[in-house]
Amino acid sequence: MSLTKIKHINKPRHIAIIMDGNGRWAKNRGKLRIFGHKAGVESAKKAIKFAINNHLNALTLYAFSSENWKRPIQEVSDLMELFSSVLNNAIDSFKKNNIRLKIIGDISKFNLKLQKYIKKSEKITYKNNGLNLNIAANYGGRWDIIQGVKKIAKQVKKGIIYPDQINESNFCRFICMNELVPVDLVIRTGGEHRISNFLLWQIAYSELFFTDVLWPDFDHVIFSNAINSFAKRERRFGKINSKCSKIYLKTGDASENSIN
Amino acid sequence: MSLTKIKHINKPRHIAIIMDGNGRWAKNRGKLRIFGHKAGVESAKKAIKFAINNHLNALTLYAFSSENWKRPIQEVSDLMELFSSVLNNAIDSFKKNNIRLKIIGDISKFNLKLQKYIKKSEKITYKNNGLNLNIAANYGGRWDIIQGVKKIAKQVKKGIIYPDQINESNFCRFICMNELVPVDLVIRTGGEHRISNFLLWQIAYSELFFTDVLWPDFDHVIFSNAINSFAKRERRFGKINSKCSKIYLKTGDASENSIN
Repeated sequence: MSLTKIKHINKPRHIAIIMDGNGRWAKNRGKLRIFGHKAGVESAKKAIKFAINNHLNALTLYAFSSENWKRPIQEVSDLMELFSSVLNNAIDSFKKNNIRLKIIGDISKFNLKLQKYIKKSEKITYKNNGLNLNIAANYGGRWDIIQGVKKIAKQVKKGIIYPDQINESNFCRFICMNELVPVDLVIRTGGEHRISNFLLWQIAYSELFFTDVLWPDFDHVIFSNAINSFAKRERRFGKINSKCSKIYLKTGDASENSIN
Repeated sequence: MSLTKIKHINKPRHIAIIMDGNGRWAKNRGKLRIFGHKAGVESAKKAIKFAINNHLNALTLYAFSSENWKRPIQEVSDLMELFSSVLNNAIDSFKKNNIRLKIIGDISKFNLKLQKYIKKSEKITYKNNGLNLNIAANYGGRWDIIQGVKKIAKQVKKGIIYPDQINESNFCRFICMNELVPVDLVIRTGGEHRISNFLLWQIAYSELFFTDVLWPDFDHVIFSNAINSFAKRERRFGKINSKCSKIYLKTGDASENSIN
């Protein structure tokens, strides 16, 4: 399956994906949900390969949200088992592909075996400088903000920083993935149009792309469509756009505007 | 223009709107941008009326983002002037329609006249218990989180709370609109698919609805479409869905799943 080479200057560097639809995919085939999750793992592998071939800086995959513990116990334990085995089997491929792995989320809730695999894979891949692969597991955007607030509050307690000195740039250092380039594009599969407590702070200026395709059916064609859609968008970050600011001053007639 | 009465149980109670497209609307008519902003004000008045007629609890309108100061100086001052006059002229209508007005954002950056009108309108409408109308002016989702972090950091400094006691429920008390029902639905006009640093903490579980229609052309038909689209959506907050959790336990075959 040759991956289309996307050549255009405003390619996204950091893409985050809400991988939704495994259960429906399995149900459509009269199968158990775990069958869908396993197919979802294969889809994730293809997406990682596509990201490497297209020189993405970072790929962040939303695997398990803070809210997913409310799922049936059997499904949660199936998912934990699947996560452990995938991690354990993938370490060699991470090394071979120069992938730097990072798990974002509260891993303290996972069983000790899984925690061990997580730490081992992060340690082994720490010095790799290819794709930054982030897996959001037991992650929530609000959880992320709160763990950042706790960290900066501890600095306040120690007198390292005063409350009134807190600002966006010194606070965001405590937010997950602050060392990486910002998230340019969020893709959500499965047809829903919501963020589902995924990255919140990080997506303030991200472009959003929604597809009805269920995650196990997500492939390089849809991935390319998302990137092409991104490349066509004008990102203004609150300005009108640089070129027409000057026109506005001359003629008072600037072209399109947007809140940002 | 009779407003369609939307009768269905899962109607959104709190709707937030990113009002985008005034400039393009003006440009399409060969006019100055302020012409588009004035048309946008009329559209906002229609949306407020629609919200009242359909018994919404809260309507939040994104009028001016923290980033919009980067716009040409003339346009910014036109917008400030427009905001002042609209506020001043609307107070009687707010009183008549039992609207409770709240401006969310850093109003300290506005000129004194505008700050005076803001405080006056909030004070006069404070006891109203009809529609909660929130205007986001000089607002940014990240600014909102930071002002919340500063407030809780001051409590840490005074020993009222310890860093490790900070959690989502005691932190969110410092976030704008925490006293209101959560934002159920975010509507964005103008065709862009991004959040543009609007509400971030607040939209963790909100549904998103995008329309290509430019804000001045937004009307009750599109508003109804957005609400109908919301009503058809299944909001699972991380669960599979309550009904199929039981099936899963019985047969191991649960119906559709989604991350949330």
